[in-house]
Amino acid sequence: MSQNVDLVNRDANGLNDHVKVAFDDVIAEPDGAHSLPCVWAGAWLIFTCTKGCCYNVMSIICGFPLALLWGCQFAYITFYHVWCIGPCMRSFMIDCGCYRKYFFTCVQCCLGPICETFGLCFSNIVVRNV
Amino acid sequence: MSQNVDLVNRDANGLNDHVKVAFDDVIAEPDGAHSLPCVWAGAWLIFTCTKGCCYNVMSIICGFPLALLWGCQFAYITFYHVWCIGPCMRSFMIDCGCYRKYFFTCVQCCLGPICETFGLCFSNIVVRNV
Amino acid sequence: MSQNVDLVNRDANGLNDHVKVAFDDVIAEPDGAHSLPCVWAGAWLIFTCTKGCCYNVMSIICGFPLALLWGCQFAYITFYHVWCIGPCMRSFMIDCGCYRKYFFTCVQCCLGPICETFGLCFSNIVVRNV
Amino acid sequence: MSQNVDLVNRDANGLNDHVKVAFDDVIAEPDGAHSLPCVWAGAWLIFTCTKGCCYNVMSIICGFPLALLWGCQFAYITFYHVWCIGPCMRSFMIDCGCYRKYFFTCVQCCLGPICETFGLCFSNIVVRNV
Amino acid sequence: MSQNVDLVNRDANGLNDHVKVAFDDVIAEPDGAHSLPCVWAGAWLIFTCTKGCCYNVMSIICGFPLALLWGCQFAYITFYHVWCIGPCMRSFMIDCGCYRKYFFTCVQCCLGPICETFGLCFSNIVVRNV
Repeated sequence: MSQNVDLVNRDANGLNDHVKVAFDDVIAEPDGAHSLPCVWAGAWLIFTCTKGCCYNVMSIICGFPLALLWGCQFAYITFYHVWCIGPCMRSFMIDCGCYRKYFFTCVQCCLGPICETFGLCFSNIVVRNV
Repeated sequence: MSQNVDLVNRDANGLNDHVKVAFDDVIAEPDGAHSLPCVWAGAWLIFTCTKGCCYNVMSIICGFPLALLWGCQFAYITFYHVWCIGPCMRSFMIDCGCYRKYFFTCVQCCLGPICETFGLCFSNIVVRNV
Repeated sequence: MSQNVDLVNRDANGLNDHVKVAFDDVIAEPDGAHSLPCVWAGAWLIFTCTKGCCYNVMSIICGFPLALLWGCQFAYITFYHVWCIGPCMRSFMIDCGCYRKYFFTCVQCCLGPICETFGLCFSNIVVRNV
Repeated sequence: MSQNVDLVNRDANGLNDHVKVAFDDVIAEPDGAHSLPCVWAGAWLIFTCTKGCCYNVMSIICGFPLALLWGCQFAYITFYHVWCIGPCMRSFMIDCGCYRKYFFTCVQCCLGPICETFGLCFSNIVVRNV
Repeated sequence: MSQNVDLVNRDANGLNDHVKVAFDDVIAEPDGAHSLPCVWAGAWLIFTCTKGCCYNVMSIICGFPLALLWGCQFAYITFYHVWCIGPCMRSFMIDCGCYRKYFFTCVQCCLGPICETFGLCFSNIVVRNV
C-alpha cells in the first residue's frame, strides 16, 4: 500500500490504460482534409473544457460517496477472504492432497502396468542415417 | 494529454489514416490514357476547392456543437470507468483469483494422477542410432 | 512453524496475493481525465480510512472467535490425518504395491509380446539427408 | 527401521507434507489490509494455543490405543506379505515368465513379419535441408 | 543362490520393498503440529513393541510349517519347468523360427512393394531451418 496519495501519476498500475479520452485520441483530421485553424482550435477548446468541467462536477458530487461505498465493500471482501475463505481453502487443499495421494496410488496400480507395457512399442527404435 | 492544440499535425495517433481524400487518392489516369492537360488541371482545381469549401462550411456549422456533445459524452465514460467499473472489476478479479486456486486444486487432484500415469508410456523409449 | 508472530510481513507464503485492495489497485484515473487534486486526495482519504476502519472493526469483533474456531478445526484435521488416515493410507499402499506387481506381471505376459512385436515397425527407419 | 525415535524431525519421509496447519499457512493478510497489531498477535496466539492444546489432548487420549492398534495391524500385514503372498507371487511369476516366452514366440511368428514389412514404410525417408 | 543364510540383509532382491511398516513410514507429524515428546516417544514404543511381538509370535507359530509347504511347492515347480516345459518350449521355438522365416518371405513378397511405395510419402520432407 502506498503510504501517501500520488497526485501526479494517478494510474501507477495501468488499470485504466484503455480509457483514452484526450482530444487527439478521439477526433483527428487526416492529411487532405483540414478545417480552418480557428475552427479546429475552437473545437479543441470546447471539447477539453466541457470534458474537464463535466468530469470534475461528477467526481465532486459522486466521488466521495463512491469512495465510502467501495471502502466498505473492499473491507468486507478482504475480511471474508482472509478470515473465512483462506482457512476453508487450506482445509480443502489438505483433503485434496490426501485424496490425490490415494487416487494416484489407485491409478498407478490399475493403469500403470498397461501404460508401461505400451511403452514397449517404443523400446526398439533403430534409426539409420545414410 | 497534450497541453496545447497542435494546428499542423492533426492526426498524431494516426486514427484516420485510412481516410484518404486528396485528389490523387481518388482520381488517377494510368499510362496510356491521359486527358488534355487543361482538363486534368481543371478537374484538380474544381475537386480540391469544392472539397475544401464544403468541409469548411460543415465543420464551422457542426464542429462546435459536436465538440460539446463529445466532451460531455467522454466525461461520462471516463467517470463511469474510473469510479464504477474499475472497482467492480477488481472485486471480480479477487473472486476469480480465489476460484482459480480452488479449481486448480480440484483439477490437480482429479486429472493429475491420470496424466502422470499416462506419462509412463514414454518412460521406456530407446533410440539406437546405427 | 514460525516460532513468533511476524507483525510486518503477514503473508509470507503468498496465500492472498490476489486480494489487492489498496486505493491504487481499485481506482485509477488515466491520462487525459484528472479530477481536482482535492477531490482525488479526499477520495483517497475516505477510501483508505473507511476500509481501514471497517476491516479493523470486523477483525476485532470476529478475529478472535474465528481464530479459536479454526484452531480447533485444524487440530482435528491434523490429528485425523496423522493418526488415522496416514496409517490407513500406508496399509492401502502396501496392498496396492503388491497388486500392482501382480497386475504388471499379467499385463506384461499378455500385452508385452504384442507391443514388443509392434515395435518392429520402427526397427528399420532409414533417413537420408540430401 | 530407525532404531531410535526421532523427537525433532517427525516426518522424515514427507508422508504428511500436504498437512500445513501453521498460522501463516492458514490465515494471511495481504498488503493493503492489515488489522491492528494487537488483534493480529492475539489471533495468532489464540489459534496457535487452541490448535496445540486440542491436538495434544487428542493425541494423549487416542495416541496410545491407536499406536497399539496399528502395531497389531501392521504386524499382521507384514507377516501375510512375507510368508504367504511373497512365495505365491514368485510361483505365479515363474509361470507367467514361461507363458510369456511361449506367447512371444507365437506373436513374433505371426505378427512379426507383417510388422517388419510395414516398417519398410519408413525405410525411404529423405530429408532435404533448405 | 547365496551359499549361506544372510542374517543381516534379508531382502537382497527387493521382493518386499513396498512393505514399509516402520513407525516413521506409518505415522508422521508435519511441522506445525507436534504432540508432547512423551506422547510421541510412548506411541513409538508401543507401536514398535506391539508390531515386533505380534510378528515374532506369528512367525514362530507359522514360519516352520509354511517353510515346509513352500519348499515342497517350489521343488515341484522347478522340476516341472526344468525337465518338462523347457524342452517342449525349445522344440516349439524351432518350429516357429522356421515358420517365421517362411511367412516373412511370403509377406515381404506380397506387402513389401506396397509398403515401400507408401514410404515415398516421406521421401520429400523439406526442413527449413530459419
